[in-house]
Amino acid sequence: MPAIRKILVANRGEIALRIMRTAREMNIPTVAVFSEADRTSPHVRYADEAVCIGAAPSSESYLHVDKILKVCRELGVDAIHPGYGFLSENAAFAQKVKDAGLIFIGPSPESIEVMGSKLAAKQAAAKYNIPMVPGTPDAIDDRDEAKRIASTIGYPILIKASAGGGGKGMRVVENEAEFDEQMDRAVSEAQAAFGDGSVFIEKYITSPKHIEIQVLGDHHGNIVHLFERECSIQRRHQKVVEEAPSISITPEIRAEMGRCAVDVARSCGYYGAGTVEFIMDEDRNFYFLEMNTRLQVEHPVTEMITGVDLVQEMIRIAEGHPLAFAQDDLRLNGHAIEIRVYAEDAANHFLPDIGTLHTYVKPDGNGVRVDDGFIQGMEIPIYYDPMIAKLITYGEDRETAIRKMIRAIDEYQITGVQTTLPFCRFVMEHNAFVDGSFDTNFVARHFHPDLLNTHTGRDGAALAALISAMLDAPSAGRESVQNEPVSITASKWRARRYAL
Amino acid sequence: MPAIRKILVANRGEIALRIMRTAREMNIPTVAVFSEADRTSPHVRYADEAVCIGAAPSSESYLHVDKILKVCRELGVDAIHPGYGFLSENAAFAQKVKDAGLIFIGPSPESIEVMGSKLAAKQAAAKYNIPMVPGTPDAIDDRDEAKRIASTIGYPILIKASAGGGGKGMRVVENEAEFDEQMDRAVSEAQAAFGDGSVFIEKYITSPKHIEIQVLGDHHGNIVHLFERECSIQRRHQKVVEEAPSISITPEIRAEMGRCAVDVARSCGYYGAGTVEFIMDEDRNFYFLEMNTRLQVEHPVTEMITGVDLVQEMIRIAEGHPLAFAQDDLRLNGHAIEIRVYAEDAANHFLPDIGTLHTYVKPDGNGVRVDDGFIQGMEIPIYYDPMIAKLITYGEDRETAIRKMIRAIDEYQITGVQTTLPFCRFVMEHNAFVDGSFDTNFVARHFHPDLLNTHTGRDGAALAALISAMLDAPSAGRESVQNEPVSITASKWRARRYAL
Repeated sequence: MPAIRKILVANRGEIALRIMRTAREMNIPTVAVFSEADRTSPHVRYADEAVCIGAAPSSESYLHVDKILKVCRELGVDAIHPGYGFLSENAAFAQKVKDAGLIFIGPSPESIEVMGSKLAAKQAAAKYNIPMVPGTPDAIDDRDEAKRIASTIGYPILIKASAGGGGKGMRVVENEAEFDEQMDRAVSEAQAAFGDGSVFIEKYITSPKHIEIQVLGDHHGNIVHLFERECSIQRRHQKVVEEAPSISITPEIRAEMGRCAVDVARSCGYYGAGTVEFIMDEDRNFYFLEMNTRLQVEHPVTEMITGVDLVQEMIRIAEGHPLAFAQDDLRLNGHAIEIRVYAEDAANHFLPDIGTLHTYVKPDGNGVRVDDGFIQGMEIPIYYDPMIAKLITYGEDRETAIRKMIRAIDEYQITGVQTTLPFCRFVMEHNAFVDGSFDTNFVARHFHPDLLNTHTGRDGAALAALISAMLDAPSAGRESVQNEPVSITASKWRARRYAL
Repeated sequence: MPAIRKILVANRGEIALRIMRTAREMNIPTVAVFSEADRTSPHVRYADEAVCIGAAPSSESYLHVDKILKVCRELGVDAIHPGYGFLSENAAFAQKVKDAGLIFIGPSPESIEVMGSKLAAKQAAAKYNIPMVPGTPDAIDDRDEAKRIASTIGYPILIKASAGGGGKGMRVVENEAEFDEQMDRAVSEAQAAFGDGSVFIEKYITSPKHIEIQVLGDHHGNIVHLFERECSIQRRHQKVVEEAPSISITPEIRAEMGRCAVDVARSCGYYGAGTVEFIMDEDRNFYFLEMNTRLQVEHPVTEMITGVDLVQEMIRIAEGHPLAFAQDDLRLNGHAIEIRVYAEDAANHFLPDIGTLHTYVKPDGNGVRVDDGFIQGMEIPIYYDPMIAKLITYGEDRETAIRKMIRAIDEYQITGVQTTLPFCRFVMEHNAFVDGSFDTNFVARHFHPDLLNTHTGRDGAALAALISAMLDAPSAGRESVQNEPVSITASKWRARRYAL
């Protein structure tokens, strides 16, 4: 494969900008495609060339394969980076890119296909010694057989509707005495909801941790892992705080989980960057969940602790280079935490809070990285995921990374929308986070909106306006500093002032 | 010594903010003092308390010891961090702080005193085996003696007026045949300029490199070094590009230079953070120049390659803690480069270019750190050093750090003043910088303003106005993207746009 001469980034926002930054460091020109809603986005201005490909709804633009391929033809693009979301795990798209004679910066269509199906993924992985959540491999309707399997697995177990989704027909069974009653309910719920009463039985993990392994594979059969990310702090079943390494595993588990991840990747002939996700129980038994065949939102924490630029590696792999390092060359160094800064209202079930970024000033300094796709004055479009930024801190150890994160959160100035910053600050200071005893139930178990100290929230509207005024026109603040002391003390960006 | 409860930062701008960031990470409240010219500075707003102590001229504010000590008394401050410049190397100030019962976050007044005098410093260091530039220890007026010494040292040598300064009475002598003539000139120039014809003789280093070693010492007699910084790229005899490690030394020289630096620190009973500066010739002979008894502007590159937060260590040392690491615990990891972003016009002899930061948008992302003290809309005050920011990049090796620096420079958006960004970009791409063959004469030898590609300069005024308008009001850019292609292509932040 030849050196890539021009990359089209088929994505938007922070991940498009992040990919373009590495491309520029590699001296590879980039092309942005953008929807009408993203005309003023930094990723559009940052690219060497930019093409508006349609209206805001993704089907008209970021998911419109033919338009994207047309831009590639017209601008002499020879490679496409899909980022995450949108077309990144669409095997048909990867195939069309290949058919058009272009390089898809990612895995083969076949790998995407296999890992896109939970059943196919498990079948592929079954060739290796990969732990799976114990349970029935297929749907079952023989009750005695089901009960026998349940007692083999050990309670608690989960009964899941075969045709199910959204929690319907799903029942936790704590012990055998409850089995018949819960089975009845599950089957009748499944029958009512899906017209199909068949169910699966699975081990129920009461305190699950979400831990995933970053892998990289090349076109020459080399696959390595870049250690784990712990992503158990979630809201609405979506990650919001991620870190590397995990406080919950030992070097032995890390090595074993890494070995499993590499084998999962090997099971589908993987090349490029991918992530193998595991669920881990209280006794540190871990089980393969699924493989994401793309760059992950939370990839920066892995970059911080390994010193590897994952996007650069993806591009090099796509150019046909063998991996520049072997497993033993990789070292885990320090600790990194990422929080996702969403335009969301934690006090209102984390629902999106769309609006204009009236104030937008980022933290900076030693050990702080911000990957974002907005500037002050921009609106958060309603059409897309409302993530404003990823704030990443890095320190020699976890405690340092946490202290830096709290400092950086306090330094972030955002007005105009509610954000997840106050919630993430709450997490950083919570005992369960600090001591590592958290799991994916953290929000349900520990969080209540009343516990938030929302210095960036609506209560501080007057303060926010003042900060905003000072930022836009520094001279506007002059009057207030003549008197002593000024009464506004709520913000971390507002010293009590005195005259001598 | 007890834990510090409140720190007054007797400084301004980026270094004040940088110190406060670490203090906040350590949960120590801070007090800012500020001049009337700095009312709207971020360091003033970032502190927990802030006091205006006088008019803009430093003698009225940042150098006004009594006012600063009064603030400490009134606000219950128990420690002062002096930053760099201003009062940081003023032994009398350090003594007054001590006499007032406060902790000076820095070395003892005695260490400052000794290292503040070149002669006293050399005398102290002479107790150890520290290489000094060969030459006469005292002024000399016996010509035969002078000639004998010169031939012992070896040509070229430098004749320097004993009472001199500013290059007057200074002569380079290439060989013995020139000696008498140059000696005559030096003596008569010195006599005319200073009324004193006595001179020193010193080895003349033709291609000097400026390399310095960071040291840390505690109150328990432990002193370690944190490797070197290479600071040879200078303009107007002031550093503008610094990096760690140096491309010019070997592990053996690093170890020997480190040993010398620790001994220099030991020679004056040093505690706190300090820097021992050396000059190195083409044959990699190095000589002790002087010791700076404070935090250095370029300290971040050392932080990046060692993972040590130098301000945190200074505070811990001042609290009486022993160093948390021994020499053998320190590892050099990766490569870091810092450029100083000054409001200066490289095309006009690097003279300050004071004005308003109409546009000010910083680079970000993987491996980029910005330490600054300004926000968009602020004026650069004429009263102080015109440094806007320090831009630091970090990568696994020097080539990566350089590539990241070029990317970050191109990403930096500053309009309203000329800056050193285009010059620093020129440095990053220059062969002599890339291959390590540069020395402190880099600017004289390689630089000419015509070689600059000033995409951030005055030629781009219209472009800058457009960028600025788009930043302030994103919707202002809408019209221009309707047509294809837009003709503005000069900026790295302005994609050629097309419609599909």
